[in-house]
Amino acid sequence: MTTEELVQQIHNKQSFLCIGLDTDLTKIPNHLLGEEDPIFAFNKAIIDSTHSFCVAYKPNTAFYEAYGIKGWRAMEKTIAYLNSNYPDIFTIADAKRGDIGNTSKRYAQAFFEDLGFDSVTIVPYMGRDSVEPFLNFSEKHTILLALTSNAGAYDFQTKKVEGKELYKQVLETSKTYANSQNLMYVVGATKATYLEEIRKIVPESFLLVPGVGAQGGSLEEVCKYGMTSNIGLLVNSSRGIIYASAKSDFAKAAAEKAREIQQQMATEIKRFKA
Amino acid sequence: MTTEELVQQIHNKQSFLCIGLDTDLTKIPNHLLGEEDPIFAFNKAIIDSTHSFCVAYKPNTAFYEAYGIKGWRAMEKTIAYLNSNYPDIFTIADAKRGDIGNTSKRYAQAFFEDLGFDSVTIVPYMGRDSVEPFLNFSEKHTILLALTSNAGAYDFQTKKVEGKELYKQVLETSKTYANSQNLMYVVGATKATYLEEIRKIVPESFLLVPGVGAQGGSLEEVCKYGMTSNIGLLVNSSRGIIYASAKSDFAKAAAEKAREIQQQMATEIKRFKA
Repeated sequence: MTTEELVQQIHNKQSFLCIGLDTDLTKIPNHLLGEEDPIFAFNKAIIDSTHSFCVAYKPNTAFYEAYGIKGWRAMEKTIAYLNSNYPDIFTIADAKRGDIGNTSKRYAQAFFEDLGFDSVTIVPYMGRDSVEPFLNFSEKHTILLALTSNAGAYDFQTKKVEGKELYKQVLETSKTYANSQNLMYVVGATKATYLEEIRKIVPESFLLVPGVGAQGGSLEEVCKYGMTSNIGLLVNSSRGIIYASAKSDFAKAAAEKAREIQQQMATEIKRFKA
Repeated sequence: MTTEELVQQIHNKQSFLCIGLDTDLTKIPNHLLGEEDPIFAFNKAIIDSTHSFCVAYKPNTAFYEAYGIKGWRAMEKTIAYLNSNYPDIFTIADAKRGDIGNTSKRYAQAFFEDLGFDSVTIVPYMGRDSVEPFLNFSEKHTILLALTSNAGAYDFQTKKVEGKELYKQVLETSKTYANSQNLMYVVGATKATYLEEIRKIVPESFLLVPGVGAQGGSLEEVCKYGMTSNIGLLVNSSRGIIYASAKSDFAKAAAEKAREIQQQMATEIKRFKA
């Protein structure tokens, strides 16, 4: 998917919501556990009920790998279902990969070609040759971790590297990578005020913002400091939407929660344009 | 497996060789492609022929994920085969994972409990709460990326963070993590002279050293700067061993190559003790 198509979808839906499919068998409604593939059954119901309020879905691969082959198959079915039924939706493999060149190339093929995701999250620690194999795919997007939403982000990411915080060095260095136009960045919402500084370095890039809701970030703050004329934001919510109810009304409850966030987003888009 | 058991195995075999199972269908002998599971058939043959010359095997998960469910199943069969037939062997999932706490916990369960690996490689970028869920497992080992063997390592890892290179900050900070006794570190062999500095920070920790052979590192240099009284090294070779021949003699050729390295290692151990 091109960035233009993503922007068009955002305008059409008045939403920049990404729903995280962190599907956990201990949290989904009990009545689904009797299904042949409970993980996929849950995802399908969530997708069918929420797709008009969001522009992206983000399965976190850890939740699928935790169930071995069964989990991997559920992930394959989920991305295939999205690509067949909702081809306009932007898909993110939240995989946080990154390895030496020939290995990164393998991961890129796995996520972009075999599974058919539009994008994948990547860790910058190993530098240029670990990232560029992902950037090499046109109409695919590489979402580089810059500043994450967890407490451990302060261990290294915010430390000064040659006078500038590591996450800023990551942003600046990554702009020199081949095909850097295919980059987006992860920036945790719990650090919304950092967005002002980040926008000085990457004024137009899309930012994937986790941590609104369960992790405490504020949508209004994120929009105030991060929104661009092309919106430039994908704000993720996982648990707050998909586990809104653990009963038989779970899909409806998720849709209501997603709709609520979509309406807040429509307000923010209107405020920005004013 | 405890560190003591690993050290005992090293002394018994006079080897600290780790064989990387980066199994690639385009590189394995053609006659295996007719097998029901060519990846596992190749791994099994390599393991059966080389296990007396090495102390560890390291499947790189990217190579398995690249083949989807088929690949994941081959990885499961490989680790199960190792654990059943060669329980003394140390096993490493070269997965380079790391995510927020509840997600890292998922990965830890997947690799340590479900798959039954002794260790997994982890990226430090997200800090403490992304690493500690792995450290929480006793008799399991978390191998943190410090200084990698690729060119991109110079993008961030060797940059000065508050006066000290990032990889040194990673080593020092990680020592303050809960259960840090379960840490090992990845240090690329192409930077053997850095080992002297690294040993000042982690004098006793095991180091997993990739990049000897195909990537140009020297075993003698690695041992000179990195060996400890408990050896403290696992030196990895992947392509140089497993693809020593692409013909029907591939397993025998791999064993010869592994034996050659084991003999060099025995010499280095003797030299160190002298």
